[in-house]
Amino acid sequence: MSEKQVFFFGGGKADGRAGMRDLLGGKGANLAEMASIGLPVPAGFTISTEVCTHFYQHQGTYPENLVPEVELNLHKVEEVMGAKFGDRDNPLLISIRSGARVSMPGMMDTVLNLGLNTQTVEGLSRKSGNERFAYDCYRRFIQMYGDVVLSMKPEKKDDIDPFEEILSRHKEAAGVDQDVDLRVDDLKALIVSYKKMIKDRLNVDFPEDPGEQLWNAIGAVFNSWNNDRAITYRRLNDIPGEWGTAVNVQAMVYGNLGEDSGTGVAFTRNPATGDNVFYGEYLMKAQGEDVVAGIRTPQPINILQKGDRNLPSLEEEMGDIYTELLEIRTKLENHYTDMQDLEFTIQDGKLYLLQTRNGKRTGFAAIRIAIDMVREGLITKEEAIKRIDPEQLNQFLRPVFDLSQKRRAVEEGRLIALGINAGPGAATGKVVFHAEDAEESASRGEEVILVRIETSPEDIRGMSASAGILTSAGGATSHAALVARQMGKVCVVGAKDLKIDYRRRSIDTGKALVQEGDFISLDGMTGEVFKGRIDTKPSEILEVLIDRTLEKDKSSLYRDYEALMTWAKEIKVMGVRANADRPEQAAQAVSFGAEGIGLCRTEHMFFEGERIDSVREMILAADEKGRKKALDRLLPMQREDFKGIFKAMGNRPVTIRTLDPPLHEFLPQEEEEVGDLAAKMGVEKSLLEEKINSLKESNPMLGHRGCRLGIVYPEITEMQVRAVFEAVCELVKSGEDPHPEIMIPLVGTAAELELQVAVVRRVASMVQKELSVEVDYLSGTMIEIPRAALTADEIAAVAEFFSFGTNDLTQTTFGLSRDDAGKFLGDYLDKGIWPSDPFQKLDQRGVGALMKIGVDKGRAAKPDLKIGICGEHGGEPSSIKFCHKTGFNYVSCSPFRVPIAILAAAQAALSDDK
Amino acid sequence: MSEKQVFFFGGGKADGRAGMRDLLGGKGANLAEMASIGLPVPAGFTISTEVCTHFYQHQGTYPENLVPEVELNLHKVEEVMGAKFGDRDNPLLISIRSGARVSMPGMMDTVLNLGLNTQTVEGLSRKSGNERFAYDCYRRFIQMYGDVVLSMKPEKKDDIDPFEEILSRHKEAAGVDQDVDLRVDDLKALIVSYKKMIKDRLNVDFPEDPGEQLWNAIGAVFNSWNNDRAITYRRLNDIPGEWGTAVNVQAMVYGNLGEDSGTGVAFTRNPATGDNVFYGEYLMKAQGEDVVAGIRTPQPINILQKGDRNLPSLEEEMGDIYTELLEIRTKLENHYTDMQDLEFTIQDGKLYLLQTRNGKRTGFAAIRIAIDMVREGLITKEEAIKRIDPEQLNQFLRPVFDLSQKRRAVEEGRLIALGINAGPGAATGKVVFHAEDAEESASRGEEVILVRIETSPEDIRGMSASAGILTSAGGATSHAALVARQMGKVCVVGAKDLKIDYRRRSIDTGKALVQEGDFISLDGMTGEVFKGRIDTKPSEILEVLIDRTLEKDKSSLYRDYEALMTWAKEIKVMGVRANADRPEQAAQAVSFGAEGIGLCRTEHMFFEGERIDSVREMILAADEKGRKKALDRLLPMQREDFKGIFKAMGNRPVTIRTLDPPLHEFLPQEEEEVGDLAAKMGVEKSLLEEKINSLKESNPMLGHRGCRLGIVYPEITEMQVRAVFEAVCELVKSGEDPHPEIMIPLVGTAAELELQVAVVRRVASMVQKELSVEVDYLSGTMIEIPRAALTADEIAAVAEFFSFGTNDLTQTTFGLSRDDAGKFLGDYLDKGIWPSDPFQKLDQRGVGALMKIGVDKGRAAKPDLKIGICGEHGGEPSSIKFCHKTGFNYVSCSPFRVPIAILAAAQAALSDDK
Repeated sequence: MSEKQVFFFGGGKADGRAGMRDLLGGKGANLAEMASIGLPVPAGFTISTEVCTHFYQHQGTYPENLVPEVELNLHKVEEVMGAKFGDRDNPLLISIRSGARVSMPGMMDTVLNLGLNTQTVEGLSRKSGNERFAYDCYRRFIQMYGDVVLSMKPEKKDDIDPFEEILSRHKEAAGVDQDVDLRVDDLKALIVSYKKMIKDRLNVDFPEDPGEQLWNAIGAVFNSWNNDRAITYRRLNDIPGEWGTAVNVQAMVYGNLGEDSGTGVAFTRNPATGDNVFYGEYLMKAQGEDVVAGIRTPQPINILQKGDRNLPSLEEEMGDIYTELLEIRTKLENHYTDMQDLEFTIQDGKLYLLQTRNGKRTGFAAIRIAIDMVREGLITKEEAIKRIDPEQLNQFLRPVFDLSQKRRAVEEGRLIALGINAGPGAATGKVVFHAEDAEESASRGEEVILVRIETSPEDIRGMSASAGILTSAGGATSHAALVARQMGKVCVVGAKDLKIDYRRRSIDTGKALVQEGDFISLDGMTGEVFKGRIDTKPSEILEVLIDRTLEKDKSSLYRDYEALMTWAKEIKVMGVRANADRPEQAAQAVSFGAEGIGLCRTEHMFFEGERIDSVREMILAADEKGRKKALDRLLPMQREDFKGIFKAMGNRPVTIRTLDPPLHEFLPQEEEEVGDLAAKMGVEKSLLEEKINSLKESNPMLGHRGCRLGIVYPEITEMQVRAVFEAVCELVKSGEDPHPEIMIPLVGTAAELELQVAVVRRVASMVQKELSVEVDYLSGTMIEIPRAALTADEIAAVAEFFSFGTNDLTQTTFGLSRDDAGKFLGDYLDKGIWPSDPFQKLDQRGVGALMKIGVDKGRAAKPDLKIGICGEHGGEPSSIKFCHKTGFNYVSCSPFRVPIAILAAAQAALSDDK
Repeated sequence: MSEKQVFFFGGGKADGRAGMRDLLGGKGANLAEMASIGLPVPAGFTISTEVCTHFYQHQGTYPENLVPEVELNLHKVEEVMGAKFGDRDNPLLISIRSGARVSMPGMMDTVLNLGLNTQTVEGLSRKSGNERFAYDCYRRFIQMYGDVVLSMKPEKKDDIDPFEEILSRHKEAAGVDQDVDLRVDDLKALIVSYKKMIKDRLNVDFPEDPGEQLWNAIGAVFNSWNNDRAITYRRLNDIPGEWGTAVNVQAMVYGNLGEDSGTGVAFTRNPATGDNVFYGEYLMKAQGEDVVAGIRTPQPINILQKGDRNLPSLEEEMGDIYTELLEIRTKLENHYTDMQDLEFTIQDGKLYLLQTRNGKRTGFAAIRIAIDMVREGLITKEEAIKRIDPEQLNQFLRPVFDLSQKRRAVEEGRLIALGINAGPGAATGKVVFHAEDAEESASRGEEVILVRIETSPEDIRGMSASAGILTSAGGATSHAALVARQMGKVCVVGAKDLKIDYRRRSIDTGKALVQEGDFISLDGMTGEVFKGRIDTKPSEILEVLIDRTLEKDKSSLYRDYEALMTWAKEIKVMGVRANADRPEQAAQAVSFGAEGIGLCRTEHMFFEGERIDSVREMILAADEKGRKKALDRLLPMQREDFKGIFKAMGNRPVTIRTLDPPLHEFLPQEEEEVGDLAAKMGVEKSLLEEKINSLKESNPMLGHRGCRLGIVYPEITEMQVRAVFEAVCELVKSGEDPHPEIMIPLVGTAAELELQVAVVRRVASMVQKELSVEVDYLSGTMIEIPRAALTADEIAAVAEFFSFGTNDLTQTTFGLSRDDAGKFLGDYLDKGIWPSDPFQKLDQRGVGALMKIGVDKGRAAKPDLKIGICGEHGGEPSSIKFCHKTGFNYVSCSPFRVPIAILAAAQAALSDDK
């Protein structure tokens, strides 16, 4: 524990700076930084994250010198702000906010207006000359303190917030619609009701002592680090629980003081499109949470953003303030060299900055901003690459609506609402109203749209399970918008015309009634909401790359994408290949930038057309002769498949895996099918059934598959190798330059590989002789069972390359079947046993340790051994980084993830410099 | 390659000695040793194994100085023996024999009488004054050289040897029955026929040049190192192919020279019983191969051995020679301090020793000889322990067949099938096909053999009720084999020739039809299956230890066994525990010397009596409440089981594993049973079926089992822990001293163990408080999936002990299901991919490497971590040695293997001294 636990900022000075994020949290570090560079920040101080750690390690108590340190700094704040905490004439009011190392928006608690009581409220009233404002502050304080510190939650699940309930009652009694229309006496009565409710429920009085208020609020904020939604958020975002949060105590400034007061949030560039324009929202006569909570519809910050909406902008209402904000915008971007998300308050015509942080953004915006900033000379290419979350590239590749269907929907009057375009892409699906329902439907494979008045952190998993999110309240910076953008979800917020009735499970737009289970469609680019289904189709990038329906230079999106990919390819060290089983997939992979095929699963071809019959005859043959007969029929088909793939890949390497799955996977299961097959084969049905049964296995994943098939039936390997080399030789003859790499699956013992490689070499040389062609090829193996990694030195003596099959390797290392894990995976994630699903993110501690053993032993035996990965993890950024650090030559993933992998590989290369 | 490649012996001198076994092979080293200590060995020389290695590395050629070295040594032999190789008047004849580091009896080739041709045969005739002898030598030489060097084999598979065929023809023509009755002219004609056949088949003349004969024979012997049967023998006996063989060239001496000549083999003690008596056989007028080949019936070496057979013994026929042999016997045993197997030849009344080596012996003999030799002061206790193959102890512990009845059964053609010898011992009984029938018959006091295609956990009670178990499918580690071994049941598995028809209740072997109720007999040592009854009897040791029908001091066998066990226990370092699931098994284990229980599988108790109903209700309960109700009923039953086990074990530690198998293993499979259960539970049958189906898994081995059950249903762990501690506390109260060790299965992540250990600690302390008793206990985990070994440091932080479950660890490390491996295991062993079944012998390279990682990481985190093994390998000697070397504290195996493990552990400890 450091000696200093409390860090002051304000009055042009600060104890901390931006680099002290670990100790002060992001918010605290930025407040210190802002204060240092002369921005108008209300004075305050930050209690460090170390205190949080102490708090959790010592049963919720504080280090002994914390109290005097806080008091000392509170005095400094009093000095700078010219007011006194708890003073009945000139009271200082303060806010208590959380602030972790990385932003966790809305996950933890905040208390505003702290320091008010029956005495100081009068002082505030006198000082501000605005009694209504003072009592409104007080009722807001009680409401927030009651929620955060005293845990006044709805008593039953479907009840509304108890304070809101009382507030509604009082508004009704006062005959007003808006909070702002409540008069002083209404507010005083409301305060009495609030306090009574608290007394009734807790049997204690609402605290009068500002000191007691302060320490209770600090404790509540520390406690909120471990509330359920914070824990869930951390798990989803890989944030360690040990980090803890800092607590920021800061003088209040008031956006609700009067006509010349207001509050807002702004982005230094457009967070949805990335355009280099100032972008924000504000509300007059409001405090910050009014903007974020989406209860009132905020106003646009400038004329540009206003469009044709009939709302005044800040640029128009308060030109000077807007100009000052524009200057701050430039100062901030130059200082932080990144797009900033800032909170400001105008108090009696004076501007205060409450917070700045790197702004969340869509994938489109992330890329555009990064590329623009390189062009503007603000950052380097490397910095640009580092800033983009590879998963955000998904949004480039996201579907859009079929335009003619969309046009028809408009003509048919199915455009039922317009909201704010908060998460790009197009989505269509069935309406659900509750996060749990979204999860449940998604688990059944249904596409759903989650529709909420507004979302809250508890909805995160349901949002993650939905194809799109629609809210009737909230703005572009509401919870729904932020989270959806982060997740790359299609999202429309603030569609005010929707009357959502949770109880009836329906939406009434005035024009149309939508029931739960009906289809709706969202355009996250435009904010349009349609009744019914509109088919989606590939994005602009896909239209350039794959469909070729759009020319490269007609798409600015494509230009950004191309710039990014070009830089990433320059920087990355590892190769990026694709897993592709068919010629058209191979062609797609090349479009996305794949430098080869890392896994071609020959068996996927077995299901095409009529060839499955030959496959089945091969499997069910009574002897080698029968098998060879069927294999002879398969040979020309496989050869043509391979020709197509090699053609598509040009001179890029193509890794072909020999037959892998257990043979019974190819056999018919239904009685009728068995009958048909028996008839085709001319054998007794009962005989066939017996044979099919004899092939069934207790644990097929650990059964007779992979190279074990080729060992027992070398004629299958022979046929496959012959098909590859006949294809390759024919292509070489016609002037092409194919590079086959034959890969033997499920090897666990060097002798297995030896026997199979002997077949490969023998057949390859036979075919080359027959066709008088010489071919360069490699033969190697998958490393996908632990024993292969453990004996990699012996195996490397025989292999020219290794390709880690991390799907199987994860299954065997964990002793866990992917198909059966569903029964307890949820429990395991909820209980934090696994930080994430090990089939999605590589388990670096366990599976990774084994991979490292495999790489080290393999390279010890053969220093230039080529090493790759072809499991699902080959397209997952954290796993790609691991592969880079472990010395892999390439990763291979599904074609659509190739761009992501390229970017992740570049980032991995840049992380070496650290 | 050493400078010297050829090593002379003879005339009281030798270049080599016994310690040079690696270079000279066993035979060559012993010949040198015998020559040095003054035994009458015919002179000769040994070509070293290094020449063999060179031969294989250089396409069958020799090092360049070999030819002069051989010539030089041949001259020395000529000098000592007073004859000259190839000399037409005084020819030296020689033998060419293989000799590897360890004896591979009969696997490689030998040529005798080399050096004869149309000239030297006349010289031999003149020199010996016995023309018939000379020509008989010549025809034998041609026959042997023809077979070994010229590969004159039968042309068709079922033909007899071509030389034997010609010999028979000539005997018929000469009107004689025996080879010895052929006259000189007959032999000369025979030689002409032999040579003609060779010329006809090969189109070359039989070589006349003795030098050509010599080098061809040397080449043939080197080549025979890699003949099929030698390769197979090496695989079965773990002899590396790189060792190579030496070649011994030695002057011939003749047991077929005349009336005073003969040849024999002898053991310095009885190799079957171990009795300290000279034991051997001989034939007059014969060469060595006549004795070994068993063509003529050999005569006993002395009066004692002759018994009441009407055959003269050597003691009677040639008293002086016998006395000389007795002296040599003493000399040899004193010199080699082990029982010797020697070959001798008497030529014209003069004795020569041709070979001596450590004699092979039965388990009984091995132990008796070792113990006697300790008592005689020949060897130390440690040396005695080292000499006994632990597997031989099996012979002490198992019921055995009445030998004369078994011999008769073979003669009568009642040997109907051969399977894998999975559970040693002999059993006879009536055939039943269903576990319930076995129970029923057993309850009537009938001995039954349960015959199944394969067994499943439901069959456990039936297996327990049977005298023996026979399956047609599965391997040595199939369910049937594992359970049988654990129960100490006689078991033969994988008897593929059996066609089992459950419907007709019959077995068809092709040769025989066996109906339900017919008697069959199983030899679990050999895998033989007999039709009909063969009486068995318990082994003497069991009569003392288990049946108590024989008093200790009345059994000399028991005294030997006890001496051996006492010494082994003194020497061994590791503890030896047993895997036992029931009180009676625990008691058995203690009788066999177990120092604790290393694995108590609580689920095995679930099948007893009516409790399976409660188990099923627990599994099928709709919610936690339902589960708890069923668990409450199971609690007292488990408690009583545990009490029984703890009582049997006294103050020895007992490791109890919490529930491990996938729950569906407990559910009924047959439709009828499901109906019954539904009725009992009072639920719809269709609902029950649905639930049962929902529990089915694609890969149950990798599914919801082990601690994953306890994580999702902590109440199951709670009940089991409560049962253990209630049992323990009650025993402590009544003055006993139980030591429970709670073991959590299938842990892969430290957090899993943490959660389960938390349950253990909580419940344990609750029960201790309730019953006011304090108990010492440990909680630990199995290490049975690779991830556990790889993260053993994290897991060790939570565990007080590790127990390696090498059955599962082998499955996951190899990616290989024990139940499915049968489909290709045979191919894998035949092709030498695996040296042995990895489920029987621990795969030290792969699985062992992982275990070493686990031990190293575990001990790095917790230096005094207790480490054991409880997989099948815990009772297998080579695996036990590995565990010792890797620093294990104990091994645990099935009760019947405890003595074997004790001996193996002692040997492992002794191997440290090397």
